[in-house]
Amino acid sequence: MIKNGRTRKVAEDESKSIRTRERILDSAAYILSRKGYASTRLADVAEHAELQAPAIYYYFKSREDLIEEVMYTGIAHMRANLSNALDALPPEASPMDRILVAVEESLRFELNISDYTTASTRNAGQLPEHLRVRHDKERAAYGRIWRGLFADASEAGQLNPDLDLRAARMLVLGAVSWAVEWWNPKAGSLSTVVRTAQTIVKNGLANSAELPSVPAKKRAAAPRSRRTKTAAS
Amino acid sequence: MIKNGRTRKVAEDESKSIRTRERILDSAAYILSRKGYASTRLADVAEHAELQAPAIYYYFKSREDLIEEVMYTGIAHMRANLSNALDALPPEASPMDRILVAVEESLRFELNISDYTTASTRNAGQLPEHLRVRHDKERAAYGRIWRGLFADASEAGQLNPDLDLRAARMLVLGAVSWAVEWWNPKAGSLSTVVRTAQTIVKNGLANSAELPSVPAKKRAAAPRSRRTKTAAS
Repeated sequence: MIKNGRTRKVAEDESKSIRTRERILDSAAYILSRKGYASTRLADVAEHAELQAPAIYYYFKSREDLIEEVMYTGIAHMRANLSNALDALPPEASPMDRILVAVEESLRFELNISDYTTASTRNAGQLPEHLRVRHDKERAAYGRIWRGLFADASEAGQLNPDLDLRAARMLVLGAVSWAVEWWNPKAGSLSTVVRTAQTIVKNGLANSAELPSVPAKKRAAAPRSRRTKTAAS
Repeated sequence: MIKNGRTRKVAEDESKSIRTRERILDSAAYILSRKGYASTRLADVAEHAELQAPAIYYYFKSREDLIEEVMYTGIAHMRANLSNALDALPPEASPMDRILVAVEESLRFELNISDYTTASTRNAGQLPEHLRVRHDKERAAYGRIWRGLFADASEAGQLNPDLDLRAARMLVLGAVSWAVEWWNPKAGSLSTVVRTAQTIVKNGLANSAELPSVPAKKRAAAPRSRRTKTAAS
């Protein structure tokens, strides 16, 4: 469908406006992750976004509103991404397969939006209560997804019964969440990190009674090939 | 040996002075972990330490000096504790045993000084360069210990050759470091967390070619009993 002149103009303005808003959010995430909540100034955000500071007020009511949105956006997108990836899995995916997909999706997504992730992880404990409401709600929802994954795997007998379920889940989440603090694209590929994380998580959580039945080679390769198939489906 | 009156008085003053200094550091760690570098005010530290703010200057030249010391102290003590624990191990401890001891020591120590740990992890990326010099040096030394542990285990053929050594080490360190953000003494014992972490790390890293030779029960119990023996020696 060909748009007429006026409609196209409105659409262009809208998409430019959306892009500017995103650029402000990206810059705020960048500054917030490095300077922290108390020292994040709109002037620095504006400079990084290559805008005049007052222009920010066209998109956000206040400094606090902008910071609240950064904190919320990162975790909200991460949760939506994880939900979608899990929903897209074929029904025959085992609970352990689903955990390994969650490891991969979370690593890739959090490193892809690393400014938002570090802004959130470094500032979550320092933000005033009223700026944390939406963030904390999303984080809780994200945590519930992981809780469900571990509960399912445990019920299916796929987890080592010696493990404490909560501790195991939080340790895995920690390994994944912390990656944003050390990952450096120049020091190795993201796929290498993902494969290593999946191997540690799979073997680390596995019910050892199940292990001997699967040949070692096949076991290590399983999450990757399964994942590739899923992505293509 | 019985001290005379004057010597005892001096010794008492000294030990009181050391305790006050520690109380200030503890309070600064508490405030710094919750408010962040930019918002940590000496008045809040003094109030938490139940002192008058000017009294702090008797122990620390400036706000920056105090914060620098908090950041340094946490990681320096953690590294010293880890070095000592590893040095105390019997020579027959395998490289994997040493990794598992490092997991236990780091978890116990970081959770024990949790205000210092969160102050350090939440603020490391936000502190001005000149306040990070000693902190970063200690952190690098701490990282080198872990690098050595993994290198030794790899050389001894105890690690799954499918793992990327750097990624594996950083994922394990992440799982351990992140614990301070979620651990709650009311939600379960620290020993449970330690045992779960050791099980995941051991099975997650292990060279699977080695696994079948050790019965599952004995394998899970090994790090604990070895550790207990060491602590008693």
